[in-house]
Amino acid sequence: MNAEILTIGDELLIGQTVDTNSAWIGKNLASFGIQITRKTAISDSENEIISAINEAFERVDFLLITGGLGPTKDDITKKTLAKLYDCGFRRDKGITVHLEAIFARRGRQMLEINKQQADVPEICEVLANEEGTAPGMWFDQNGKVLVSMPGVPNEMMHIMENRVFPRIKNRFKTPEILHYTAVTVGVPESLLSKQLEDFEKTLPPHLNLAYLPALNTVKLRLSGRSDDAALLKAEMAGYFDNMCEVCGDAIFVREDISPVKHIARQLIQSNIKISLAESCTGGFIANQLVIEPGISKVFNGSIISYANEIKQHELGVPAEIFSTVGAVSKECAQYMCESALKKFNADIAVSTTGISGPGGATDEKPVGLIYIGIATARGSRVKKYHLFGTREQFMHRAANYAMMLVKDALLQEFDVH
Amino acid sequence: MNAEILTIGDELLIGQTVDTNSAWIGKNLASFGIQITRKTAISDSENEIISAINEAFERVDFLLITGGLGPTKDDITKKTLAKLYDCGFRRDKGITVHLEAIFARRGRQMLEINKQQADVPEICEVLANEEGTAPGMWFDQNGKVLVSMPGVPNEMMHIMENRVFPRIKNRFKTPEILHYTAVTVGVPESLLSKQLEDFEKTLPPHLNLAYLPALNTVKLRLSGRSDDAALLKAEMAGYFDNMCEVCGDAIFVREDISPVKHIARQLIQSNIKISLAESCTGGFIANQLVIEPGISKVFNGSIISYANEIKQHELGVPAEIFSTVGAVSKECAQYMCESALKKFNADIAVSTTGISGPGGATDEKPVGLIYIGIATARGSRVKKYHLFGTREQFMHRAANYAMMLVKDALLQEFDVH
Repeated sequence: MNAEILTIGDELLIGQTVDTNSAWIGKNLASFGIQITRKTAISDSENEIISAINEAFERVDFLLITGGLGPTKDDITKKTLAKLYDCGFRRDKGITVHLEAIFARRGRQMLEINKQQADVPEICEVLANEEGTAPGMWFDQNGKVLVSMPGVPNEMMHIMENRVFPRIKNRFKTPEILHYTAVTVGVPESLLSKQLEDFEKTLPPHLNLAYLPALNTVKLRLSGRSDDAALLKAEMAGYFDNMCEVCGDAIFVREDISPVKHIARQLIQSNIKISLAESCTGGFIANQLVIEPGISKVFNGSIISYANEIKQHELGVPAEIFSTVGAVSKECAQYMCESALKKFNADIAVSTTGISGPGGATDEKPVGLIYIGIATARGSRVKKYHLFGTREQFMHRAANYAMMLVKDALLQEFDVH
Repeated sequence: MNAEILTIGDELLIGQTVDTNSAWIGKNLASFGIQITRKTAISDSENEIISAINEAFERVDFLLITGGLGPTKDDITKKTLAKLYDCGFRRDKGITVHLEAIFARRGRQMLEINKQQADVPEICEVLANEEGTAPGMWFDQNGKVLVSMPGVPNEMMHIMENRVFPRIKNRFKTPEILHYTAVTVGVPESLLSKQLEDFEKTLPPHLNLAYLPALNTVKLRLSGRSDDAALLKAEMAGYFDNMCEVCGDAIFVREDISPVKHIARQLIQSNIKISLAESCTGGFIANQLVIEPGISKVFNGSIISYANEIKQHELGVPAEIFSTVGAVSKECAQYMCESALKKFNADIAVSTTGISGPGGATDEKPVGLIYIGIATARGSRVKKYHLFGTREQFMHRAANYAMMLVKDALLQEFDVH
């Protein structure tokens, strides 16, 4: 079944807010066999909202709307929906009780605009929102379902998971859509597609392969659609295996997760401790690892050694290094990872030293140059890369290459696959 | 003038990619007085692309398209545009030379699918893309302008800045749209809107105020539109001053930047050195600071002290702390920031210790509890917060509150406003 998403709010159009909700909704509805065929972002304008809803309902029977439900004047979604469905408002008891509890807990006075958040169009079914003050709403008229939710991500997700998903199961019958995704690091899209040319020819019409490049990774996504979920799953698993075999070592992980997340999970599962000494990546890699729940089991800590004096005093990099080969060097990276290994009592330690730009470059050491070191009890080694992009992109790319080194060490020295 | 954005690619619909391009485009076109009135995301399907373009041109005269220009089979935008404009292809000399240079530099063989990236619809003007292999295209037919660009963010931005912006200036005459934004931390949207109720009534019809809540910040965005840019600017500056005055201390920064970025810039400008000892925020705050170019002037480094043994051995937290009040305590946060101040030779040091969840909570110390410490030469102090959300949201909120403490210290002890 097809559905569309409509996001409401000027902030999405003038670029003040990046829309992460739609991606989340698209990903989660796929598992119900619902395919998002269009997403539209419009401003907080009554005419725009009404015409966008009417247009969407000419194409699909299920429309999800986010945004425009705040208590302030600029939020007009609720009023507009009442107008569209030509109905009045009622003040919902359940929401009122919930709002009073929130305000009591926060020790704040309830203003009239807060109380009005309990007003909903008469014909809608309320989707309770325990995470916030604006409830979701479910309209089911003339065979068309419209869901309206707040734009605040955690509130939207809460309503989707607890209120919308169960209703979707009851309301719709849909074919299965499955996605199998593998992530590659360091191999360009065109090379992968050349390698996979013959494989792509073997795909039946109801399966297709997409390439999604991002920085130094490419996601390979195999999608399929069928009425028989079990059959499709078995069929796709076979094709997915073939695809991964053709790509060989280029495949970093056979799942739709980032290289850092994959490594974090492997470390936790195998109980192998990691630490870092980061210079140019400024804590980015450590923080990406720490975002994984349960990381405390294998992460004691790490250091961001930005200045040479910190590299010297905290990591024992000899002063001669700075006056001879410099801080951005193989030698410095080696000292850094070896010291981090001991200092934080780790099994694997990673170091980074480079020029993230825009300043700091010399003729021999251009912006983008980076040395990434890795140390284990068996010794250390350093690899040199030239990375492109902004400071943030530089850090992202560096993290992915660092994870390649960790993956290799896990395989070679710890027998972790 | 109004314009629309069309993004092409299944990955945006099934949630594999978050669309950051549209936000960037929306933000940047605003300064040309061009307002994005609708953004639509569709799949790599010829019918969808053609109907979405035709629909958009019924509403606006300027359409920006991203995506679907890769070398692989799933990318069909270029072919579809040739069909829409009913024209053939020509192989562009300039692009061919550029492609050959890229492949020579990378030491890679050029495949036929790579060479085909130089093929463009005959009637379009080529927008050279020095950052990648897929060129942009500018179509100007029957008074309607269509720009097609790759979906890779840095390539799109490069083409926009170097090829599209100059052409916009030549091609269109547009009224001015201005936005003035202030960011608040720690005050809920409904309270701000109550405070600003009278102010909002004073706004003339061509100005409007929007509230954009995100975690523990709210952006207050004042927008205006006029044919006279200078007049509008002066008028809005006055209203913006009034608005900020009404909100008083709630205003963190009178600019559309994050609290961390604002503090990073203040530190660099005033040459005040910062360091951190982060436990539960796992390097997040340090990394957010380091993303700011030029931070090396005021950031020697910092430590992520996740395990108690690291807090003890690297930051001198006495072992008794862990056996009495515990690592998540005022006392521990105090030791941590005081040690970080000395260890990294800083003027201000921040520490965090808390329960980011989902594990690690006890009855007295629930998920979300955090102590944030701040130390300067004049001493240290610690504040306690309860934060909500996922691990990442917890870190974001903590960073914003930590910046409130730094802002206060900058004002009180360093006379930095």
